Amino acid sequence: MVADAGAPRMTKSRMEAFSDGVIAVIITILVLELKVPHDESIEALAPVVPVFLSYVLSFIYVGIYWNNHHHMLHATHRVTGPVLWANLHLLFWLSLVPFTTAWMGENHFAAAPTALYGVDLLLSAIAYWMLQQVTIASEGPDSLLSTAIGRRDWKGKLSPVLYAIAIPLAFWSPVLAQSIYALVALIWLVPDRRIENAVKVGET
Amino acid sequence: MVADAGAPRMTKSRMEAFSDGVIAVIITILVLELKVPHDESIEALAPVVPVFLSYVLSFIYVGIYWNNHHHMLHATHRVTGPVLWANLHLLFWLSLVPFTTAWMGENHFAAAPTALYGVDLLLSAIAYWMLQQVTIASEGPDSLLSTAIGRRDWKGKLSPVLYAIAIPLAFWSPVLAQSIYALVALIWLVPDRRIENAVKVGET
Amino acid sequence: MVADAGAPRMTKSRMEAFSDGVIAVIITILVLELKVPHDESIEALAPVVPVFLSYVLSFIYVGIYWNNHHHMLHATHRVTGPVLWANLHLLFWLSLVPFTTAWMGENHFAAAPTALYGVDLLLSAIAYWMLQQVTIASEGPDSLLSTAIGRRDWKGKLSPVLYAIAIPLAFWSPVLAQSIYALVALIWLVPDRRIENAVKVGET
Amino acid sequence: MVADAGAPRMTKSRMEAFSDGVIAVIITILVLELKVPHDESIEALAPVVPVFLSYVLSFIYVGIYWNNHHHMLHATHRVTGPVLWANLHLLFWLSLVPFTTAWMGENHFAAAPTALYGVDLLLSAIAYWMLQQVTIASEGPDSLLSTAIGRRDWKGKLSPVLYAIAIPLAFWSPVLAQSIYALVALIWLVPDRRIENAVKVGET
Repeated sequence: MVADAGAPRMTKSRMEAFSDGVIAVIITILVLELKVPHDESIEALAPVVPVFLSYVLSFIYVGIYWNNHHHMLHATHRVTGPVLWANLHLLFWLSLVPFTTAWMGENHFAAAPTALYGVDLLLSAIAYWMLQQVTIASEGPDSLLSTAIGRRDWKGKLSPVLYAIAIPLAFWSPVLAQSIYALVALIWLVPDRRIENAVKVGET
Repeated sequence: MVADAGAPRMTKSRMEAFSDGVIAVIITILVLELKVPHDESIEALAPVVPVFLSYVLSFIYVGIYWNNHHHMLHATHRVTGPVLWANLHLLFWLSLVPFTTAWMGENHFAAAPTALYGVDLLLSAIAYWMLQQVTIASEGPDSLLSTAIGRRDWKGKLSPVLYAIAIPLAFWSPVLAQSIYALVALIWLVPDRRIENAVKVGET
Repeated sequence: MVADAGAPRMTKSRMEAFSDGVIAVIITILVLELKVPHDESIEALAPVVPVFLSYVLSFIYVGIYWNNHHHMLHATHRVTGPVLWANLHLLFWLSLVPFTTAWMGENHFAAAPTALYGVDLLLSAIAYWMLQQVTIASEGPDSLLSTAIGRRDWKGKLSPVLYAIAIPLAFWSPVLAQSIYALVALIWLVPDRRIENAVKVGET
Repeated sequence: MVADAGAPRMTKSRMEAFSDGVIAVIITILVLELKVPHDESIEALAPVVPVFLSYVLSFIYVGIYWNNHHHMLHATHRVTGPVLWANLHLLFWLSLVPFTTAWMGENHFAAAPTALYGVDLLLSAIAYWMLQQVTIASEGPDSLLSTAIGRRDWKGKLSPVLYAIAIPLAFWSPVLAQSIYALVALIWLVPDRRIENAVKVGET
């Protein structure tokens, strides 16, 4: 088609491959922030422990994003220019996770780093939601994606709310904020179907 | 064919996969230049802000290159030896983006680092143009790629001119040079079709 | 199917691509722990030698995991949600290999780092075994995977036992513990078929 | 086949994807060795120049290996266990290129680092030759690969000889050794067909 010739018709497979590459690098360079102690005693590992814990949390978060990203693309048939840029926007905020993780871990979960970590999670969640909206707009309201998301979007809606609560809380009690981050991760980790069935039962 | 047996007939898919890998790593290691502050206060983030801004600009630039690279390959059918090396040449200048970004960011957008950043952008743009010419030469003047590029090459021609203006300007006003870099990124970010339609209307 | 619409049906190819990406990054960033000496004499390489040796061992281990991972997926047809998370769990412990390798190498194979290295190998082996169990559960007891694994699982069972022996031994004799790690790597490196034939002959 | 069930039958595509990933990471982390100067003047770039030059050389070398690796696999149909391990062996020596490059560049092409750089090139060339032999053994003497390599193996045979000459020369004249490294890269960069035709003409 002449009219579309200049429009970006990104093949889905290459956008998947690129996103996989970026997410794989993000999840792996997280570990570069674990600074090797120069002492050889087991005690030398003590300062690494909080960094390690923040590493575990971030690894799970990036894993969840990769998982969800795959599901969204699985139900997607058209990759348009706005979808591509919404995807890069999501990858941008995810690429900052190693930075916020390291700042939080090295400062033993202090207030400001814990809040910034939440800000990055919040912006990633918003970016994911935007990618979802742009994709639905391109796929159409009756598409498979639209139907699938409608059914389980309570997680996608609840997560940013919880992050927005946790961020100011971090200045009052960092531990509480981190518990909320961990809770959100847990919500996503629990298999969808069981929760959905529970929700369905609750709705009946 | 016997005559071609020794000539490089690179399959397009593997060249795509390799380029995706390199660009994915470039875009992700950019963040490694964001040095984690050792203090836990919000104020400790202040020196990171200019590095972060240069990071945002470079992330967008690498995203644009990935996008354009995909479109060019999308319309390509033959990958010859010269195409491969022109591709590696482009990846070479792109791989220097994390270095020039960090130098510019860490020196708060000083003159020389801002100019060097522009030099790398200019050489990347020239390398992209060379890849385009080599690919057109291999595809033929009547090919889909040749037609598609002919129509929207005003961006490809304008960008190096703007970089070449910005580089000496950086020594007089770094802010002006950076504004030009941001302007070029914006030109590429705005969806092609609308601009093209505007151009068409203007031409009518 | 309506009932499955919300369940994760990960396509095998994307899980492979993501795992390949993560393992490729792990195996390559291992070398980042080889700190470049600032002196230009050959003698300056001396402190790098133990780090290099631990690098060789870890490179082989990650290579073995990639190899085995490929074989497991080769015989797999369904990728379910639990398989995905068991896979991420394996990648998590593997992603710590650059950290434990560097700590062991920089401290010239001291006791505690050698023990920690073994702990990571042990947890990786357990994670691999869990991935295998989850995959078999999803594929069914009569599947190709189940049959293939049953025949050569003696390696998978012996390895964690040897790691568990080596870890406490490291505090008594680090060299002995490292010899056990090297022995396990050797067991996996020797081509399967010959050993299996030997085992078969022994069984007859 | 029952007899082969336990033997490693690596699919070619996944070995390609993994090798692409590793080589893409190697070629990109090379740039991490370019340390960002802390001064903002153009003069501050002066100490970076030799590191940059060694970076250019290594980028070209890794590009050549990726190119040749692709051609070899292009003509390969079976990927056996020995092929896999010969491939990992090649990736091992290539993964050390960022280390040897940085040591050579940071010491302004001093004798020992220049020699070590050549040792890594030599071992990579030998590893490539081994991979080639193992692949030919698996493909058979009448295979496409065997025929294709036979015709242009003079480069593969000449390169290690030149490296072996350059390594001891480095202690007498580093510049001479580096010129030989550059010459070998040039030999590979010049398109095969023209050289081959020249060789053919010479043979006639």
